[in-house]
Amino acid sequence: MNEKITRPHRKHSFTRQKERLNFFAMGGLGEIGKNMYVIEYKNEIIVIDCGLKFPDNELPGIDYVVPDVTYLENNKSKIRALIITHGHEDHMGAMPYVVPRLNVPIYATKLTLGLIKNKLQDEIPECRPDYNEIKAGEIIELGSFKIRFIAVAHSIPDSVALSIDTPIGRIVHTGDFKLDSTPIDGRITDFGAFAEEGDKGVLLLTSDSTNAERPGFTPSEKIISGTLANLFRAYKSKRIIISSFATNIHRIQQVADTAAKFNRKLALLGRSMLRNVELSRDLGYLKIDSKILIPVEDIWRYSGNQLVIMTTGSQGEPFSGLVTMSRGENKAISLSEHDVVFMLASIIPGNEKLVHGTINRLFATGCDVVYEKDKNVHVSGHASSEELKIILNLVRPQYFVPVHGEYRHMVRHSQLAQSTGIAPRNIFLMHNGDVLTFAKGSPPKIRDRVQSGAILVDGNATSEIKSQVMKERREISEDGVLVVAAAVDDRGELLSPVAIETQGVFFSDDTHGIYNELYAAAENAVKELSGGRVSIDALKRTIKTRIRDVLRRHNSSFAVVLPVISVKRPGYYYDDLSYEKEFF
Amino acid sequence: MNEKITRPHRKHSFTRQKERLNFFAMGGLGEIGKNMYVIEYKNEIIVIDCGLKFPDNELPGIDYVVPDVTYLENNKSKIRALIITHGHEDHMGAMPYVVPRLNVPIYATKLTLGLIKNKLQDEIPECRPDYNEIKAGEIIELGSFKIRFIAVAHSIPDSVALSIDTPIGRIVHTGDFKLDSTPIDGRITDFGAFAEEGDKGVLLLTSDSTNAERPGFTPSEKIISGTLANLFRAYKSKRIIISSFATNIHRIQQVADTAAKFNRKLALLGRSMLRNVELSRDLGYLKIDSKILIPVEDIWRYSGNQLVIMTTGSQGEPFSGLVTMSRGENKAISLSEHDVVFMLASIIPGNEKLVHGTINRLFATGCDVVYEKDKNVHVSGHASSEELKIILNLVRPQYFVPVHGEYRHMVRHSQLAQSTGIAPRNIFLMHNGDVLTFAKGSPPKIRDRVQSGAILVDGNATSEIKSQVMKERREISEDGVLVVAAAVDDRGELLSPVAIETQGVFFSDDTHGIYNELYAAAENAVKELSGGRVSIDALKRTIKTRIRDVLRRHNSSFAVVLPVISVKRPGYYYDDLSYEKEFF
Repeated sequence: MNEKITRPHRKHSFTRQKERLNFFAMGGLGEIGKNMYVIEYKNEIIVIDCGLKFPDNELPGIDYVVPDVTYLENNKSKIRALIITHGHEDHMGAMPYVVPRLNVPIYATKLTLGLIKNKLQDEIPECRPDYNEIKAGEIIELGSFKIRFIAVAHSIPDSVALSIDTPIGRIVHTGDFKLDSTPIDGRITDFGAFAEEGDKGVLLLTSDSTNAERPGFTPSEKIISGTLANLFRAYKSKRIIISSFATNIHRIQQVADTAAKFNRKLALLGRSMLRNVELSRDLGYLKIDSKILIPVEDIWRYSGNQLVIMTTGSQGEPFSGLVTMSRGENKAISLSEHDVVFMLASIIPGNEKLVHGTINRLFATGCDVVYEKDKNVHVSGHASSEELKIILNLVRPQYFVPVHGEYRHMVRHSQLAQSTGIAPRNIFLMHNGDVLTFAKGSPPKIRDRVQSGAILVDGNATSEIKSQVMKERREISEDGVLVVAAAVDDRGELLSPVAIETQGVFFSDDTHGIYNELYAAAENAVKELSGGRVSIDALKRTIKTRIRDVLRRHNSSFAVVLPVISVKRPGYYYDDLSYEKEFF
Repeated sequence: MNEKITRPHRKHSFTRQKERLNFFAMGGLGEIGKNMYVIEYKNEIIVIDCGLKFPDNELPGIDYVVPDVTYLENNKSKIRALIITHGHEDHMGAMPYVVPRLNVPIYATKLTLGLIKNKLQDEIPECRPDYNEIKAGEIIELGSFKIRFIAVAHSIPDSVALSIDTPIGRIVHTGDFKLDSTPIDGRITDFGAFAEEGDKGVLLLTSDSTNAERPGFTPSEKIISGTLANLFRAYKSKRIIISSFATNIHRIQQVADTAAKFNRKLALLGRSMLRNVELSRDLGYLKIDSKILIPVEDIWRYSGNQLVIMTTGSQGEPFSGLVTMSRGENKAISLSEHDVVFMLASIIPGNEKLVHGTINRLFATGCDVVYEKDKNVHVSGHASSEELKIILNLVRPQYFVPVHGEYRHMVRHSQLAQSTGIAPRNIFLMHNGDVLTFAKGSPPKIRDRVQSGAILVDGNATSEIKSQVMKERREISEDGVLVVAAAVDDRGELLSPVAIETQGVFFSDDTHGIYNELYAAAENAVKELSGGRVSIDALKRTIKTRIRDVLRRHNSSFAVVLPVISVKRPGYYYDDLSYEKEFF
């Protein structure tokens, strides 16, 4: 065969590949949090959102989790824009980690951009990204993409959905939304725009699945005004403490309005709360008369029934205002039977224990607590089943991908899509990293996977933690660690008796007897390998095996066994420390 | 002053003390689980229930938690009876741990006693307690106590409440109950008996607070029959898998009846399920035609739409049938799109994550899942607000103690009690160990505390784990452990270079640089203390301090530092291993 033969088929396929449109997620599928979606056409990439996730209890010591953006780092030059749909942490919280790595222009609406700037100036002041303010209703062109921003109602103002026109077809991405007909700022979800995009023809809809399990409609944020008025009346003799997300500007507006109506002063507690209120007032998203607001240092000037204190902690966040109050550790506020706490928020799945623990502790201070189980005290920011079906019917997409949810939410959302007439084969239940590829003339397919995953960020570091470290932490947290230290000379002979220490280890039977056996087993292991050149690794392995044998024999403990070997070389004394893994 | 002076006042008080009636809890207050309540009059004690609690994520490696019964062990001879109100783990699960320590006669109804016997024979076969079967409606006399057993409806048959007549007054203890007017076994809560006791006069009511947050009435267990029929109809072409508690005999009865109605065979999966069904059929609490039941080994003989498989795992218990199925690790059942799973149970607070994870994995197998968010698929076994108020009104107690709940549930229950007219000063929000004392002629008071607490039971051991061990586990789970091993001679001189190993430790900056500093710091610490008699403890302390200094300087890690010291004595070589904590 002639090696120089032309390969038309292959060349054709190469051309076709270039005409492909890809959709995938770096985060946000199969989870609530770290939303990050990618649209790729030829050599152009648009990234939507860049969120973090708060870790669950299986990740001890981890403060937050961000998406693994290796794929984007490797394709940095292709990225046209990072578009942020709204200013919640699960959509923008990973920016301090991601933005310096990608150096990409950022697009967002005014309030969202304000929140992003605050965040990045705090955490990565050296980074000066290219900020671009956009408006709902606007259309911008970025390379082959034409992007229309659509106003949506959500639990933070200035949220947008996106309609992205590409040479292969149109993708509508809802972002987080609900169809609140009476939102606090009067800015309703732009049904007309969704319908127009639907009329033009939509290839793919990717839509918020958070509340796909909930029947009916999510109530309007406005009902909270009524609830607040009732509660202020019911607790008129008490000092009122209200917890909320620091980003829930609508909620803060309603509290401020109710405070004014009932002649109470409003004090804000917590840096994020203060800062967001300042920003939102500056930008015109929040209207609070300055006469209402007082600094928390001045609350002593007022009696309890003249005050409302608003703070964070509705999810039981350990360092939030409400949680420190519940622990009696808040410097400004100490709670008693003269107080009432309104927790006007629903519990984000996974936070149940933190929230319930906070409520229990709040009650124990003597104050009264109004919370989730009470009527009309919380309103979700996400669309319920009927709203999701309305969007599906307005947009009438050819293909559908439920996003932003645990797997169960995505399954439920796909069932809703089927009920509106979308065929099951046109719905894709995707995992993070799955690449859904559209090409003209052939049905879309999940053809590929890009690297995706979770980067764990530890408190004192902004760098990532390897999953091996987490595995080790989990292991030792289960049954503790048993350390065997042996000091040997260059022929592997013991210099001194083996030492054993434990941390978090529990022996079920006769402890003294077990220790004697453990010492003997470890020293026998060393003896067995002594008398020649032995690798430290082999010595460690042998000690591990022998120690585990003893533990198993006693059916006593599943502790992690950690051998530590110190070696004395002839004529050598602790200067060079790099020998550790070598043969000796 | 004459030292022989008589002290009438003191003597009087001593007499009075003997006339006191005490109520306290060893567990069950401020928590859902490990219920154990004690009534004490003079030298006589009645113990009600003996439950365990499943640990939360803050107790890694712990399998279950039982009450600390030190007080009862110290007063063993006074205990007249251990009465078990019903056969749930949170009321009888600690018996294998407690019964051998107390050697006390056990009183329970027939089914409860059957479950207890099974459990104790399995776990402590050598123990042969004195079993006493009682019946609802019966009155027994035990020393100064006269105890009436009152039938109550709950999610397990044969549950009872207690009315305990004492010389100081009557105590009514509801146990777990609801006022289901149409229970599966027709055995309704005996309103009349509660009313009679109320008419006779009740000093103290202690009542189930689990659902005090829920408005209205808990629906009847019977609605599940309708739900099951609808679901069997809706999923007529699929194999049906149903998860439930192994003790929910009513639920098993309804599933069996529905299976018969729809011509399906019922296979039970899981040892506890099989065993409880066998016991309940033997004792007449469960009526299943033998033609309906097939062993799980025979399911291959039937098509999916001829089968119902019932198993455990409604709370996401890691080794349950449903959870192993969701992981694709169940030997008997492998799930696919031809299956549907009905999880007909509500989530016990704290289990949210386990349950949601299970649902997500079940969906990922391709099967459909019907669960909590769907309508009428779960019914609680506990009374809601209106039912609790009915009991309060029937019993009309002088004093009230909400039991069986987290603090928030108890607070809500106390608010319900106030709404029925009980004065706040007559309601006691107690903690485990608080002793509420009644004496004739003076108002009751919490005067004292007895030792109470949690004994942590590790899987392979039936013995308890010290809280120190748990503290250590938590610490190392947060940031890992850094081990420093040093071998020294009897003058504290290093025999070989210090060795360092880590487990679960993450260094945020230059790892190599930090290691060099850590080695140097540890070796300097040893040098500093060498040249004389030094205690190993002092050496460990110094190493810890120096290592932490390095970590702090680098703002790098909060790892637990664990020094391990091995010592060589002149003329001594590893025979005696007991010197470790001595001076050298």
